[in-house]
Amino acid sequence: MVGAVALDSVETPSEKRENLLGGSASYFSYAASYFTSVRLVSAVGDDWPHEHTELLQSRNIDTAGLKVIPGAKTFRWSGKYHADMNDRDTLDVQLNAMEQFDPVLPEEYRRCRFLFLANDPPGLQIKVLQQCPGATLTVADTMDLYINNQHDELLELLGRIDGLVLNDSEAKLLTGDDNLVRAGHAIRELGPRFVVIKKGEHGAMFFSRHETYVLPAFPTPNVVDPTGAGDSFAGGMMGYLAEQGNFEPKTLKKAMAYGTLAASFTVEDFSLDRLEKIEREDIEQRMRKYRQMLTF
Amino acid sequence: MVGAVALDSVETPSEKRENLLGGSASYFSYAASYFTSVRLVSAVGDDWPHEHTELLQSRNIDTAGLKVIPGAKTFRWSGKYHADMNDRDTLDVQLNAMEQFDPVLPEEYRRCRFLFLANDPPGLQIKVLQQCPGATLTVADTMDLYINNQHDELLELLGRIDGLVLNDSEAKLLTGDDNLVRAGHAIRELGPRFVVIKKGEHGAMFFSRHETYVLPAFPTPNVVDPTGAGDSFAGGMMGYLAEQGNFEPKTLKKAMAYGTLAASFTVEDFSLDRLEKIEREDIEQRMRKYRQMLTF
Repeated sequence: MVGAVALDSVETPSEKRENLLGGSASYFSYAASYFTSVRLVSAVGDDWPHEHTELLQSRNIDTAGLKVIPGAKTFRWSGKYHADMNDRDTLDVQLNAMEQFDPVLPEEYRRCRFLFLANDPPGLQIKVLQQCPGATLTVADTMDLYINNQHDELLELLGRIDGLVLNDSEAKLLTGDDNLVRAGHAIRELGPRFVVIKKGEHGAMFFSRHETYVLPAFPTPNVVDPTGAGDSFAGGMMGYLAEQGNFEPKTLKKAMAYGTLAASFTVEDFSLDRLEKIEREDIEQRMRKYRQMLTF
Repeated sequence: MVGAVALDSVETPSEKRENLLGGSASYFSYAASYFTSVRLVSAVGDDWPHEHTELLQSRNIDTAGLKVIPGAKTFRWSGKYHADMNDRDTLDVQLNAMEQFDPVLPEEYRRCRFLFLANDPPGLQIKVLQQCPGATLTVADTMDLYINNQHDELLELLGRIDGLVLNDSEAKLLTGDDNLVRAGHAIRELGPRFVVIKKGEHGAMFFSRHETYVLPAFPTPNVVDPTGAGDSFAGGMMGYLAEQGNFEPKTLKKAMAYGTLAASFTVEDFSLDRLEKIEREDIEQRMRKYRQMLTF
């Protein structure tokens, strides 16, 4: 997986926390690590606390691709959540090390079969794709910034990847359609074989040529910090697919469910604090509850 | 069921329609009629088109409780939907005949076992409850107006009913809690044995002492007019419960699913136009798709 590692400042209605381990790459890798070994590609500055690297390594995440750029600072994101915890305002973004991020993958990384590209600029995502010609499943995320400002590059990316994961607001922005069912299929027709629309507390939708479905979020009473939920979702999903070694429709639907559960744990505390406390068996236990919830 | 029958004016992003058959009682009764015989209690003015009564009767809905108030006009509601079709502004409300609505139930109505009280003032809902002492399942809806202005009466109602159905925004307003899982259980602790929170396009949540679950909406690409979706949900749910003659946890969950599907048909056209075109078998066919969607 290729993406950002960050230091976050997060303000929720009840608490304010600073210098948290964050970024798409951290959440994705940690969630995926319950299912498969992960190779992480990112860049940080020399202010990066080494214990964060150790935390990732403790879950068998390969950090050989985590480049420290001398003299640079680590990417910083600061955001404030609304009362309902489903919307947030970004207060500040300092790209820092990520601005100079030009991933050159280590040789052994280039043989990966399952590749996830977090929401970096589409041109950069394409550069990474070109370094992994043998990948059998390539999935990307994107964001409003690139939908608005790098539309052509994004369209080129969509023609080259197998799956796209994006938020509901981004799907509406990309297609100009407020009906998510139509929007999902419209994006699929731009290239990817499947599209996943993440709806935050309302779950996630899946679109392929022959399938349209929605899975609800796991209802947790304990939403402390939603930061990283979407990246954890993608990590759980891709991690399970890599573990299974295929992406048949059946496997994809189970992967959607595992992604949903990974996200449900992440939001129960700040940063990776909740994920740090669970084992694969906790995910499986929640999976049994989730299946039961959807059985009637 | 006791509720309002109305003439609606509805504006969606693509179309404006006037004088549509609407109101909670119309949608509820029509949706419930696929499962059980329905007895409707409401009031209209002498401008009420008789063909609307005939339409309801054509589905075996007993309209003996539909009172025509001479000299009065029928309840009128006018609303405009936002681009995403999940929010709307009420442009105008003229209670008219509903202002004088003081339901005195016909004798044979008072022996009903399954009673649904649409979102009328809680004092009126309690009056109806008192007329049906033999009801084995009583479920009510409510709305922001009564949460704000008739709080004590509403709390009294909550102590007397078996189930409450309300919107997500109303659940947040009633409890002051933006987390719907906590809000649902908090409302349950005010009296009802179960609570259903309707989330529009995002589905519905169920809360009882031992259960918490969410079912997603059926994903339809064809959302024409969401008016009446919540009432159709309640109608499908209560209709199925009445058909089954019990409200065991298993039956309740299936009822939630039937409510979800009834709503999914309603939104596919204005007024009752889509429901008018379907048979029970169409609901069953969609149920098979819905079950498959949630199986992994």
